[in-house]
Amino acid sequence: MRATMDTDDPWDGTGPGSRRLLEAALAAFAARGYHGASTRDIAAAAGMSPAGVYAHHRTKADLLFAISEAGHRHALAVCERAVEEEIGPLARVRALVHDYAAWHARHHLLARVVQYELDALLPDHRAVVVDLRRRTEQLFRQEIQAGVDAGVFRTDDVDSATLAVLSLGIDVSRWYTPGGPRTPVGIGRSYAGLVLSMLGADSPAAAPPQERASGR
Amino acid sequence: MRATMDTDDPWDGTGPGSRRLLEAALAAFAARGYHGASTRDIAAAAGMSPAGVYAHHRTKADLLFAISEAGHRHALAVCERAVEEEIGPLARVRALVHDYAAWHARHHLLARVVQYELDALLPDHRAVVVDLRRRTEQLFRQEIQAGVDAGVFRTDDVDSATLAVLSLGIDVSRWYTPGGPRTPVGIGRSYAGLVLSMLGADSPAAAPPQERASGR
Repeated sequence: MRATMDTDDPWDGTGPGSRRLLEAALAAFAARGYHGASTRDIAAAAGMSPAGVYAHHRTKADLLFAISEAGHRHALAVCERAVEEEIGPLARVRALVHDYAAWHARHHLLARVVQYELDALLPDHRAVVVDLRRRTEQLFRQEIQAGVDAGVFRTDDVDSATLAVLSLGIDVSRWYTPGGPRTPVGIGRSYAGLVLSMLGADSPAAAPPQERASGR
Repeated sequence: MRATMDTDDPWDGTGPGSRRLLEAALAAFAARGYHGASTRDIAAAAGMSPAGVYAHHRTKADLLFAISEAGHRHALAVCERAVEEEIGPLARVRALVHDYAAWHARHHLLARVVQYELDALLPDHRAVVVDLRRRTEQLFRQEIQAGVDAGVFRTDDVDSATLAVLSLGIDVSRWYTPGGPRTPVGIGRSYAGLVLSMLGADSPAAAPPQERASGR
């Protein structure tokens, strides 16, 4: 069991006032979409006046960027940790798929805003977020390619496989329902198995699946 | 080559006035989300006055339902045709994955509204749409299960595999960009191969992939 509490918080390092505002904005964007949520809605959800929101120097566009950047950084950190903790492409891809899918379940409202409101970001904000997405994608591609090079995966189209693997994780945020029959860890485990099979791994069940069940 | 023009139109059977309004509402919902699009926006996009919209007896909620129902019925019809045209679970699952993924690319704006605005539907409308979704899901599950029963697929969790396969198709509508490097048919073909591998099919490349390249 590893300590995950400090890194399981996407708002880590945010002061209490900002956190309250970001969480209110997130709830409003998740419920009504970025364009459907007003600054007034967000202020009300945060228990602030609209003037209080501006006192934080935050426009609606700034709030979306703060949420999108925090979410993307957090998901990337989760993926980087998964790669660091495992040895060899099969174990690393299993860990990446597990933790990325579980993240999209555990933080499903954050993930929805982060993944579905890219077009609403201002160009400068979007550039920052696109770079974080590129780095996340790169992690997956590099480990899938390493597995192909090492002969543990058999796929002739690493780009399509990378796209499909990321897509599976992202779409969890659309369908996941808290309290439903599937848990974040359960989703992570079954998706890891399906992806290893998709990649043509010889023995997807080779290493113990409970290895990554430590509360992520 | 089969004739697909008549069934490739999700608004088939809709009169010209309704079609113009539905297409305008779809564009507005896709651009700003259901909650972010006003009836005034929709009327303007359709070249009508707001009163003209009401003359069609359409509220914003009715328009969303009409779009969602048409989109779900069209996707289901595409899946039903894929199953009817092929023999055996491997060919049928390949066709289902191909045509479902290609549909989500070809009709990506419609698909986004259909897939991401479920929570915005009124309860009675939602019930109709949920039933169409259940029938689509059932088609996939039944063919995957048939493949397991026949020994052509090896997966010990048909529910998770069905979820993952549908999820891959649906998420195409999020990332697909017209004019980008991937075409609807190209996506369909590579996803069909990846899914057959995911399901543990012995020889995913057994049948000619160009079989389903006929313009879908």
